[in-house]
Amino acid sequence: MFKVSVVQFKPELFEIKKNVDKVMKIVEGVDSDFIVFPELAFSGYAFSSKKEVEETYESPLEENGYAFKTFREFSKDTGISVVYGFNEKYEDKYYNSSILINSDGTFKIYRKTHLFFREKLFFTPGNTGFWVENVNGIKVGVAICFDWYFPESFRTLALLGADLILHPANLVLPYCQEANKIRSLENKVYIATSNIWGTQSNGEIQYSFTGKSQVTSPNGEVLFRLPDQGDFIQTVEIDERKSQNKSINEYNDLFKDRNPKYYFHS
Amino acid sequence: MFKVSVVQFKPELFEIKKNVDKVMKIVEGVDSDFIVFPELAFSGYAFSSKKEVEETYESPLEENGYAFKTFREFSKDTGISVVYGFNEKYEDKYYNSSILINSDGTFKIYRKTHLFFREKLFFTPGNTGFWVENVNGIKVGVAICFDWYFPESFRTLALLGADLILHPANLVLPYCQEANKIRSLENKVYIATSNIWGTQSNGEIQYSFTGKSQVTSPNGEVLFRLPDQGDFIQTVEIDERKSQNKSINEYNDLFKDRNPKYYFHS
Repeated sequence: MFKVSVVQFKPELFEIKKNVDKVMKIVEGVDSDFIVFPELAFSGYAFSSKKEVEETYESPLEENGYAFKTFREFSKDTGISVVYGFNEKYEDKYYNSSILINSDGTFKIYRKTHLFFREKLFFTPGNTGFWVENVNGIKVGVAICFDWYFPESFRTLALLGADLILHPANLVLPYCQEANKIRSLENKVYIATSNIWGTQSNGEIQYSFTGKSQVTSPNGEVLFRLPDQGDFIQTVEIDERKSQNKSINEYNDLFKDRNPKYYFHS
Repeated sequence: MFKVSVVQFKPELFEIKKNVDKVMKIVEGVDSDFIVFPELAFSGYAFSSKKEVEETYESPLEENGYAFKTFREFSKDTGISVVYGFNEKYEDKYYNSSILINSDGTFKIYRKTHLFFREKLFFTPGNTGFWVENVNGIKVGVAICFDWYFPESFRTLALLGADLILHPANLVLPYCQEANKIRSLENKVYIATSNIWGTQSNGEIQYSFTGKSQVTSPNGEVLFRLPDQGDFIQTVEIDERKSQNKSINEYNDLFKDRNPKYYFHS
């Protein structure tokens, strides 16, 4: 058993320190094993120029960044692992990344595979691929926002053994919250989606985000869903045995029943 | 543009002739290009012994079977293509198959890839794989019932170029009708699901079927959904240009954005 918490909040565009300090108050004293924060959680999302991207990156592999330092410290102090999305600079490229940080100081980065909309103007498609990591006996994997649209993303993580998929998001389309019930069901896996709410405006760019952060269970149920607006943290206990057993009745096992020789060839 | 019709009815177990004659009345005079009937539409589903399977098969490849002869004649007479599910004997094995029959007498068989529950006791997993076929300028593919649970099924058909997925079903689980909205959305494809309704009892075996046959559109909308009970035929016009264009905004194309090198490896 494992307690996972999802944070939903409204970041202020480009105000990294202010946003980090804000969520540090939201998570204060929480009793959890794992906290999921949104995609591009502290920089904000509504980039209108490359210059804004260049001014808001962090590079955890070079041990820098206010969010990185703050959450590494938080994780050490509390024993709670965290994942959050950030604008990553690596070898002169910018990625829409998420970082998993553990209490022993270790961390691992996932770079978003499927870029959405104007992200393509500023970010390079991720080159890490999907991975799973053992955190306190639970296998977790990370996918970012629009990755959900491609069934291959969560399928890959589930086939790699993920019990729980951490899903930092900045959702603007109306589909994901319902779709992730099916993503959980088809893979028998937990999915924790952390979304932001409210609008972000930047010149002619304006986005409205859908809130409704949630956790779905291996049988496709919504364990909780937050309102479409408002700052929240909510925690739920998950049972990894439910995601490790892929049988759905005495005859069918969702992974053993796959028949890859008939998939995707043309 | 292309008119597709979905038939929903309640078959009587093992009464092939009676069931075929019943649906022939349902489809009488319909104005359509294509009619989809359920899985194992005329034999019924609630097999309790191999003997029952051996007594209710058809073998279209040997040009026999009451349903096959009737629908081939129907298609020739009306110009309407049909697909229906049947118990197929082929080379001494039994398959849960569906046949696509065109008005020129040609036909093609799909054998169900993913067998559900007690089907595994009686049927051999399909060996045809997924295919698409050009019918009057529309590319159609077939998947049967539980195939929907595996995202690879409809993904494969969409990647092969299907505009419309024909989905004969005998659904007992409550998920498919909502899930197929997501299957349509993630693949930008039409899906026409033909289901039966009512219960079938056979000794200790009893199944309740969920009705709610439907057609979903490339943007994930339900074009129509029938009630959970009752015999019906309903027709809808589809626009294949909507499934052929996989872009969802000026930056994203659901197929070009795929990145298979990161999928499924372990």
